[in-house]
Amino acid sequence: MICKNVQALTAYTPGEQPKDARIIKLNTNENPYAPSPKVAEALRTFDAARLRLYPDPVFMALRQRIAEIHGCTVEQVFVGNGSDEILALCTRAFVENDGSVGYFEPSYSLYPVLTDIRGVTRRPVALGPGFTWRTPADDAASLFFITNPNAPTSLMHDKASVSAFCRTFRGVVMIDEAYGDFADDTCMDLALAADNANTLVMRTLSKSFSLAGLRFGYVIGPSALIGALYKIKDSYNMDMLAQILGLTALNDLPHMQENVRRIRATRARLTTELRQRGWTVCDSQTNFLFARPPDGDAARLFEALKTEKIYVRYFPGPETGEYLRITIGTESQTDALLAALDG
Amino acid sequence: MICKNVQALTAYTPGEQPKDARIIKLNTNENPYAPSPKVAEALRTFDAARLRLYPDPVFMALRQRIAEIHGCTVEQVFVGNGSDEILALCTRAFVENDGSVGYFEPSYSLYPVLTDIRGVTRRPVALGPGFTWRTPADDAASLFFITNPNAPTSLMHDKASVSAFCRTFRGVVMIDEAYGDFADDTCMDLALAADNANTLVMRTLSKSFSLAGLRFGYVIGPSALIGALYKIKDSYNMDMLAQILGLTALNDLPHMQENVRRIRATRARLTTELRQRGWTVCDSQTNFLFARPPDGDAARLFEALKTEKIYVRYFPGPETGEYLRITIGTESQTDALLAALDG
Repeated sequence: MICKNVQALTAYTPGEQPKDARIIKLNTNENPYAPSPKVAEALRTFDAARLRLYPDPVFMALRQRIAEIHGCTVEQVFVGNGSDEILALCTRAFVENDGSVGYFEPSYSLYPVLTDIRGVTRRPVALGPGFTWRTPADDAASLFFITNPNAPTSLMHDKASVSAFCRTFRGVVMIDEAYGDFADDTCMDLALAADNANTLVMRTLSKSFSLAGLRFGYVIGPSALIGALYKIKDSYNMDMLAQILGLTALNDLPHMQENVRRIRATRARLTTELRQRGWTVCDSQTNFLFARPPDGDAARLFEALKTEKIYVRYFPGPETGEYLRITIGTESQTDALLAALDG
Repeated sequence: MICKNVQALTAYTPGEQPKDARIIKLNTNENPYAPSPKVAEALRTFDAARLRLYPDPVFMALRQRIAEIHGCTVEQVFVGNGSDEILALCTRAFVENDGSVGYFEPSYSLYPVLTDIRGVTRRPVALGPGFTWRTPADDAASLFFITNPNAPTSLMHDKASVSAFCRTFRGVVMIDEAYGDFADDTCMDLALAADNANTLVMRTLSKSFSLAGLRFGYVIGPSALIGALYKIKDSYNMDMLAQILGLTALNDLPHMQENVRRIRATRARLTTELRQRGWTVCDSQTNFLFARPPDGDAARLFEALKTEKIYVRYFPGPETGEYLRITIGTESQTDALLAALDG
C-alpha cells in the first residue's frame, strides 16, 4: 500500500535538538540572539480567542510587507511553513513525473531527499575545487536548486555565474538565500528581472530573524511561477500566529540587522582564531563556518566536542568528511569553543 | 515550466474570511466559543526567545499525549500542519503515479482537488438517496477518503458499513473524523484493530477544540502507514507554538467537551426551529446543519442572509444546490439567524 519510492526512501536527518539547556548548540545554524522584542510583545497581547477562526488563507498582510521590502507586487510573493515547504512545493509544481531535479554537491542535503520523495531523477553536479562554482554541463533538469551562500560550505557563488546560468537553463532555478542576510551580496534582483522568467529567490526567518521555531520562509519570483505554488499549497498552510509574529519581525528590520552585525563580527573573530590554530576555514558569508582542523580528523573532533557539551555538525563523505560545520554563537559560546579546542 | 496538471488545476476555494467583526460567521464550521483558557495562559507565559530554536521535528510530547488519549503507541500517531497537510501527504505516500483516489460525492470538496494536484485519477462514488452510504462497486482506488460524519451533509455513515468496507478494500482507507467529537460514535477503533492494516482515522483541533487558527490535525493508524508519512513530511512541519498550544489544549479535554455539549444543544434547537418552518434538515452529527429551505432556493437565501451580515455556505450543484450548510453558532447568533429567516 506504500509507494515504492517512499519504501526505498532514506529520510532527511535534521541536526540534533538536545533537551539539555547547558549544551552549547552550534549544530543547526540557529541564531544565538532572541528575536525582536516586538515579537514577544505581539505574543503577550495576542487574544487567544482569535485562534478559533481560520487564518487568512493567502496571508495578504504578510505579502504586502514582503512586497514593500523587495519592491515587487503581492503576486510575486509566496510564503511557506518554513522554506522546506516551499522547496517541496517546487518539486511538485515544476517537475513532471518523468522529470529530474539538479543541485550541487555538497549543498543542502535535503535536495536529494526531496527528489526521491517526488520520485524523479537526481542530477547532482559536483562543485569545483575548493567548493567553487561549476556551471552544470547537463541542462536537462526541470528544476535546479542553488543554495547561495552555499551550505555547508559557507561560500557565496559569484553572482555573474549564477545570473548567466539562470539565463541559459531551461527549467526553473530556485536560489535559496537562507543565509542571504549574512552575505555581502544577493541575487534577489534576478527573481525580479523581467527577462528572468525562470528564477525564484527564497528567504527564511529561521536564521537572521531568530525565528526557526516559527516556520516561516518566503519566495519571490515571476507571478506565473508563484501562482503555481498557490494552486497546490495546503489551504491554510500559514497558521495565524506565524502570520502575526512573522509580520511583526518583518516590521523590525533594525533588530535583525543588529543581530546580523554581531554575528558577522564573531564570524570574523572565529575565522581568525581558527586560522591561527592551523585550520583551513572557508570565507564564510553565512552564520556558520565550514572549517577543517589541522589533522583533518573532523569525525574525532566532532565526538570530542560533544563530550564537552559543544554540539557542531559533521557530514561524512569524501568532500565534506574532513570539515566541521560550526554555527556562529555568542561571544561567550565562542570563548568556550576555543577553550575546548585548546584544552 | 509549470506541470500540466498544475496548469489545468482549479484550486480549492476556502470559505470566506471576512474582516468585518459584525458579521455572524456561520460559513466555515469554526467553533463559536474560545479555546481552553489554559491555551491563553500558555501563550502569555511562553518565552519568545525560545523561537530562535527549531522545534522538535518529531513532536514527541504531542504524540505521547495523543497516544495516551487513544490507547496506542507513539509509532501509531502522526501530527500535521492542519488535517489538510495529512490528506495531501496520503496522496503522495499511498498513491503511485498511475494510481487513483476514491471518495464520496458530495463530501469534502478538497478531495478531487488533492487528486488533481497529485495528478492521478479521480474515482468519485455517488452517495445513495438522502446522502446515505453506498459501498463503492469499484475497488481499484489506491486510497479512499471518507469524511465521517460527512461534510457537507452532516450525516454519520453507519459504522458497520464503514468497517466492512475497510476489510474488503485493497488500498488505504482514510476516515476523516474532523467532526468526530460532535458525533455519537467513532471509527477510531478501526484504525487500531490489528487486522485492519489499511485504515487511518484522523482528527483535528480546528473544530471541537476551537483552534482553526493553529493548524493542527492528527492521524492514528498502523505504524507501517504512519511511518511512511514521517518519511515524506517536511522536516519541521509542526511549529513550536502549535506543538505547545496543541498539547495544552489536549490536556484540557473537559473544556472542549463542555463546548461540544453547548454546540450539540444549540444544534438540536436550530434543527427543531428550522423543521417547524418547513425546512428539510439532515440529522446532524457535526457542528453544522445541512438544510433545505421550503422552496429549495438556497442560492437566493444565501445571498439574502449575506446582505444581513449572516454568512453561511452554499455549494452549487445537482446534489447540494438546494441546501445551505449552516455552522452552529452561539445561542444569540442562532436567535439572529432565525430572526433574519422570519423577517
